Amino acid sequence: MAINDNMPMPDRLIEVAVKLFAEKGYDATSVADIVETAGVTKGALYHYYTSKDELLSQIHRRFITAEIKDAQRIMAQGWGPRETLRHLIISLVESIVSYRFEVTVFFREMHRLPSSVFDEIKQARDDYAGFFEKTIRQGQELGEFRHDSHPRMMTLALFGACNWMYTWYNPDGPFSARKIGEQLADIIMDGLSCPG
Amino acid sequence: MAINDNMPMPDRLIEVAVKLFAEKGYDATSVADIVETAGVTKGALYHYYTSKDELLSQIHRRFITAEIKDAQRIMAQGWGPRETLRHLIISLVESIVSYRFEVTVFFREMHRLPSSVFDEIKQARDDYAGFFEKTIRQGQELGEFRHDSHPRMMTLALFGACNWMYTWYNPDGPFSARKIGEQLADIIMDGLSCPG
Repeated sequence: MAINDNMPMPDRLIEVAVKLFAEKGYDATSVADIVETAGVTKGALYHYYTSKDELLSQIHRRFITAEIKDAQRIMAQGWGPRETLRHLIISLVESIVSYRFEVTVFFREMHRLPSSVFDEIKQARDDYAGFFEKTIRQGQELGEFRHDSHPRMMTLALFGACNWMYTWYNPDGPFSARKIGEQLADIIMDGLSCPG
Repeated sequence: MAINDNMPMPDRLIEVAVKLFAEKGYDATSVADIVETAGVTKGALYHYYTSKDELLSQIHRRFITAEIKDAQRIMAQGWGPRETLRHLIISLVESIVSYRFEVTVFFREMHRLPSSVFDEIKQARDDYAGFFEKTIRQGQELGEFRHDSHPRMMTLALFGACNWMYTWYNPDGPFSARKIGEQLADIIMDGLSCPG
């Protein structure tokens, strides 16, 4: 595993943990595996993190916090619903590709979070989904998006189409994240638009 | 956990295993957990299955085999691409709901399969995807589906929109599987149709 030695220790430990969790699974990765791969002592790890659980919690927090920040930046532009939604979709796809190890852990190991952190992350995920739902609802009110599905359902369909990429995206494949994001955005936008 | 006592033993063990794997995760579930929940001895389990790995392999095989059989039945009807794709989508959504524990294990624990079984299941998943791709390609040839995306990409977007349901579907929620399937099919079909 290629690890950046210049990274501050807490980030380096997160980076190692995320790759091991994505590769071997959370339960199959021990604290010993993490410190050995990072080339540090257990004491160094426990200086920054109280447990393997806390590493998992931090991975979830970092990813969803970054997503919410991106969405807030887009929402603040004052674009109409179509333009806003298109940017939200492309930004989501680009994040999934850039942070594909984090995303794998995020989606696969959510059920392993300590229950108080689970509730916190679930709330943050709902907040993130709220930006999409709000935009779709505005688009419906303006007659730009279809009315025959609930904004929540449309958001979940859209999330599925994008999030599923973590199972199939190949960074060595022919398409860039941007290109895939644009294609997915086209398909989704047409799916959500008023039919006919 | 409510377990049907009248089920033949091999099916009952699979049913117990699938629920425990979905609830606790594969690595965190022991053979002892499975036999205790099923109310049988380890000897009884090892009479039918050589290992926990084999249970996981069987869960994957059963689900993908059922999916392929459904798709073959639909493909054999001789419908046009739109009608065929609509039925494929609704059937997929109904399966995801009916077999939501199997689906959770299928998607979350694929990376825990022994490598020879992983290759076998991956091939079967590709075969299943092939029915969708073929139908989309036919629809493109007939001018019914958009040409600006590759059929493989469109299939993956569609799979995402449907498969993602395993993370959010609530059997006590307001919509039946059929209703959700129809709504998703409408959104997806319009997304894949020629724009404008």
